[in-house]
Amino acid sequence: MEDTITAQIAEQRTQQSLTRRATVDLMEQRLFTLHQVLDQGFVRVIDYMGDDGAIVQAARVSYGRGTRAVQQDEGLIRYLMRHRHTTPFEMCEIKFHMKMPIFVARQWIRHRTANVNEYSARYSVLDREFYMPAPENLAAQSQVNNQGRGEALPEARAAEVLELLKVDAARSFDLYDSLIVDEAQEASPQGLARELARMALPLSTYTQFYWKIDLHNLLHFIALRADPHAQYEIRVYAELILEMVRDWVPFACKAFEDYRLGNFDLSKSMLAVVQAWLRGEAVDQPSSGLSAREWRELCQALGRQGCV
Amino acid sequence: MEDTITAQIAEQRTQQSLTRRATVDLMEQRLFTLHQVLDQGFVRVIDYMGDDGAIVQAARVSYGRGTRAVQQDEGLIRYLMRHRHTTPFEMCEIKFHMKMPIFVARQWIRHRTANVNEYSARYSVLDREFYMPAPENLAAQSQVNNQGRGEALPEARAAEVLELLKVDAARSFDLYDSLIVDEAQEASPQGLARELARMALPLSTYTQFYWKIDLHNLLHFIALRADPHAQYEIRVYAELILEMVRDWVPFACKAFEDYRLGNFDLSKSMLAVVQAWLRGEAVDQPSSGLSAREWRELCQALGRQGCV
Amino acid sequence: MEDTITAQIAEQRTQQSLTRRATVDLMEQRLFTLHQVLDQGFVRVIDYMGDDGAIVQAARVSYGRGTRAVQQDEGLIRYLMRHRHTTPFEMCEIKFHMKMPIFVARQWIRHRTANVNEYSARYSVLDREFYMPAPENLAAQSQVNNQGRGEALPEARAAEVLELLKVDAARSFDLYDSLIVDEAQEASPQGLARELARMALPLSTYTQFYWKIDLHNLLHFIALRADPHAQYEIRVYAELILEMVRDWVPFACKAFEDYRLGNFDLSKSMLAVVQAWLRGEAVDQPSSGLSAREWRELCQALGRQGCV
Amino acid sequence: MEDTITAQIAEQRTQQSLTRRATVDLMEQRLFTLHQVLDQGFVRVIDYMGDDGAIVQAARVSYGRGTRAVQQDEGLIRYLMRHRHTTPFEMCEIKFHMKMPIFVARQWIRHRTANVNEYSARYSVLDREFYMPAPENLAAQSQVNNQGRGEALPEARAAEVLELLKVDAARSFDLYDSLIVDEAQEASPQGLARELARMALPLSTYTQFYWKIDLHNLLHFIALRADPHAQYEIRVYAELILEMVRDWVPFACKAFEDYRLGNFDLSKSMLAVVQAWLRGEAVDQPSSGLSAREWRELCQALGRQGCV
Repeated sequence: MEDTITAQIAEQRTQQSLTRRATVDLMEQRLFTLHQVLDQGFVRVIDYMGDDGAIVQAARVSYGRGTRAVQQDEGLIRYLMRHRHTTPFEMCEIKFHMKMPIFVARQWIRHRTANVNEYSARYSVLDREFYMPAPENLAAQSQVNNQGRGEALPEARAAEVLELLKVDAARSFDLYDSLIVDEAQEASPQGLARELARMALPLSTYTQFYWKIDLHNLLHFIALRADPHAQYEIRVYAELILEMVRDWVPFACKAFEDYRLGNFDLSKSMLAVVQAWLRGEAVDQPSSGLSAREWRELCQALGRQGCV
Repeated sequence: MEDTITAQIAEQRTQQSLTRRATVDLMEQRLFTLHQVLDQGFVRVIDYMGDDGAIVQAARVSYGRGTRAVQQDEGLIRYLMRHRHTTPFEMCEIKFHMKMPIFVARQWIRHRTANVNEYSARYSVLDREFYMPAPENLAAQSQVNNQGRGEALPEARAAEVLELLKVDAARSFDLYDSLIVDEAQEASPQGLARELARMALPLSTYTQFYWKIDLHNLLHFIALRADPHAQYEIRVYAELILEMVRDWVPFACKAFEDYRLGNFDLSKSMLAVVQAWLRGEAVDQPSSGLSAREWRELCQALGRQGCV
Repeated sequence: MEDTITAQIAEQRTQQSLTRRATVDLMEQRLFTLHQVLDQGFVRVIDYMGDDGAIVQAARVSYGRGTRAVQQDEGLIRYLMRHRHTTPFEMCEIKFHMKMPIFVARQWIRHRTANVNEYSARYSVLDREFYMPAPENLAAQSQVNNQGRGEALPEARAAEVLELLKVDAARSFDLYDSLIVDEAQEASPQGLARELARMALPLSTYTQFYWKIDLHNLLHFIALRADPHAQYEIRVYAELILEMVRDWVPFACKAFEDYRLGNFDLSKSMLAVVQAWLRGEAVDQPSSGLSAREWRELCQALGRQGCV
Repeated sequence: MEDTITAQIAEQRTQQSLTRRATVDLMEQRLFTLHQVLDQGFVRVIDYMGDDGAIVQAARVSYGRGTRAVQQDEGLIRYLMRHRHTTPFEMCEIKFHMKMPIFVARQWIRHRTANVNEYSARYSVLDREFYMPAPENLAAQSQVNNQGRGEALPEARAAEVLELLKVDAARSFDLYDSLIVDEAQEASPQGLARELARMALPLSTYTQFYWKIDLHNLLHFIALRADPHAQYEIRVYAELILEMVRDWVPFACKAFEDYRLGNFDLSKSMLAVVQAWLRGEAVDQPSSGLSAREWRELCQALGRQGCV
């Protein structure tokens, strides 16, 4: 069945039409291409609307593209990003088809500003596909951060845990399969309703959905989910999408990486500390008004050795 | 632990303050009361804003409450509901705390116009609580409707299925528990990160969240989820909430039940059929322009015997 | 300046690129074409994403287009529309550039589910363009409906009113122009800030904006604003957009017109009346449980002569 | 009529009920009190839901209030604000009644995440109320910033401009009044429909609306509109609302002022400059990679004398 799909997609890649809409060559390359993520997941771009020029056009509420030099376009986009003028970035839209484990999808769907069509396990039977981490991604609970991972498990323990997860998921899928009567088989009154049988499936089960979102909200999503504090299993999706955005709207993406990904936000109290340091004054944590945690974050961000 | 909670809530029920805001006596009764749903789920109202008068007040953009007779207020609310003037209904807000199985929560969260804070299984350890249907709710897949249930399973088979579900869920919880190191125990480097261990849990696991929504969007939710086509496990929540809405905004709820729950929407073609019937003309499905399914729905809704 | 714009747009029409995305020939014709509305307003499509096939694709969460016959696609779209499965329609997106009077734009912007970039009168100087109705559209206040128009004004009075409106608007624009120093002129310390000077402009002043919205929300907008009860000045925009939607997604538009534009929604009480009528029973307004207004609406919708 | 309103509100202030909901004494003081803004505008709180404790409660998805010490609550709120965990702040809601000039309301309404009911000029007749700035607020167009004000106009010129604005607005209102037949008067077929007559009114005309929003979105609104770059006429409203928020949720408001209002966001390139400075290295604008404008902003924020 996967082969049929791959063949279908390959066939669709060959079809092209003429359009008067803005097109982006690198995105055209991405269309009808599956990008694998995790062991069995994927992301593929289905459609896109607009380009860097569309952001500029909306910001100028002007009539056309190409009326100003490229140089000025980039400057304007950086200005918009820096000053959080977000509406022009909403003028670009992108649509994905993705497949991911349910526990990842649950985080994903919490971003409410997107359009979603998910595969329905009330209506259809789910495939026997569940996520098994690579051994090096099996990490212990962080000792510092309640919401994070620490060291990778020792190799032997990782192998053991993986085996346990695999056996358990397989057993739950066996149960699911046995409860549901396959559509191809003769109807049986004993077959449990799909909407009920699904409750036995583990959260590692793969689901898939279409996801459509505007560029502003997509960048906000990436800022949160490509962050080092995000769970690894969602971060790899967000990082792949970031690469696609780089192809799609290179000026906007560059500005985003400068102002939103690599930035550091100084609170009012942090600002006072930095001003004092620049005047050559000594400040320590107790006199700074910062909590121990904020103080550490500030010292790390500014590469202030010894201040920690 | 459940006892502590019950005691806490009981203690909080005793606390009252004076307010100048609109209050609704029947809702005050609901506050700090757990309403059980399914085997281990619940709904409880945490807070509410506004009443029937607040809808009227917003519709009139007037200065006060009580400036017109109650009779006129109800008439205005019915007018607003009938003509889908939705913004005044957005002026009331309600907040719930609920507990439900994850596969139900997944449907719930798809309603994007609400505010949500869910219990985090990255941060905290989930309780050993999973949904087991009552035997009479264990139904076979519908033979007519891909997305629905048919007859209840035969008694013996239901008992068998329940046992299978219970054993499987218990085994998955055992695995989850063994992978995670309890916070109370001595720290162990072998304890798998919570954000990973949760992947072994079944979709029947209970989760809980706070949910805040305005009245207009709540009624839309109820119209979809208290519908006979909705899955039983979400419908029981929606029906309970409908009862609460009846206590909260009785005029708005009555109008909603007349115009949105008990209604039937005639399409352009259906309208032509009904007009012909009322003129005494004979119409059959082929000449009606309706599909077989639409024809059936129309005949049923109008109680037109023999036309099916 | 208008000439320059027209020339620019004409030049842009000539540019075409190859794309793998879904394209719609009739929409390609609409691109880079100004459609005039009212005396000086316009609508033009800037970009679109998706087609009827994209709705079907999302509903099936399937891999490709063209996997089923066209006949089945239309049936599925009608099914989705009838049962208010709205998310697949959100998978299409369209972007417009429009120009309209401010009092119309104020109604327009109240639809919150769209992306907007409006011409800024803080930043830029507004053109001397204001709306003057055609004489036949100058109607008296409705005697029946607080929120509507009655008969057209008598010809002589209409001419008089138009002259009064024109003189007043011209005078306000004279004031605005005199308060603001033209950018082209030498800077003058006396020139009032644009953000203040604009307060003198009448609500008939034209503004323009980019507007991007998904198909589901666009159809909802059209249902409200192409309705006979909507103000004429917004209705003409909504009707033009409806024509464009017909070109863009013909199956979805046809289903919309059958189920949402030409429909009639029977309340619970209305349904009981129609059932009684079909059984041959006599029902009059007092015994129907309907208000006089609802009764009139029902009789009119069903073409029930004499029942009014 | 204003007297009647004032009397009504005063009467309503005297009414109090018992509630189990969270109440905030300082907000109770605000209820049924008009706060004047600009010459004829106002803001008044109609209702509120939640307090600082409700934020904490949602963040903990716990059962009650008061389970931890106040100290810990404030720490948690600061943590949530610093790390942009926004959903707990969405659990508080507030509702206002406000009156403001139309050109201010147009900016206001662009914030789409709120519920609005505005006075309808299709349905009702607008009062003869328009905004006239205080003379000291009549400023010239900024010579530096396209979107801002510069110096106040010289006194004599300000008086002259005010007189021109006042005469023009009065003339437009005279026209509006003459076109519309007063409801109190005998019906006249010549009376122009209200929905048309309103087009003659200036953008300085006062309108009023109900506005309901959650705390997270309200703080975002305040961050944009209480900013020195916002137009004076909207800033005064935002600043008044900020004072109310301080009464309502003091911990959240304090955290907001520290982390969102008094903060400075260092871009990736700015961060590198500050790190170099702290190492004692000399950096000038050309070698910094910053634009002249960004360089200036950085130097000002850090109080780095001479670097400009």
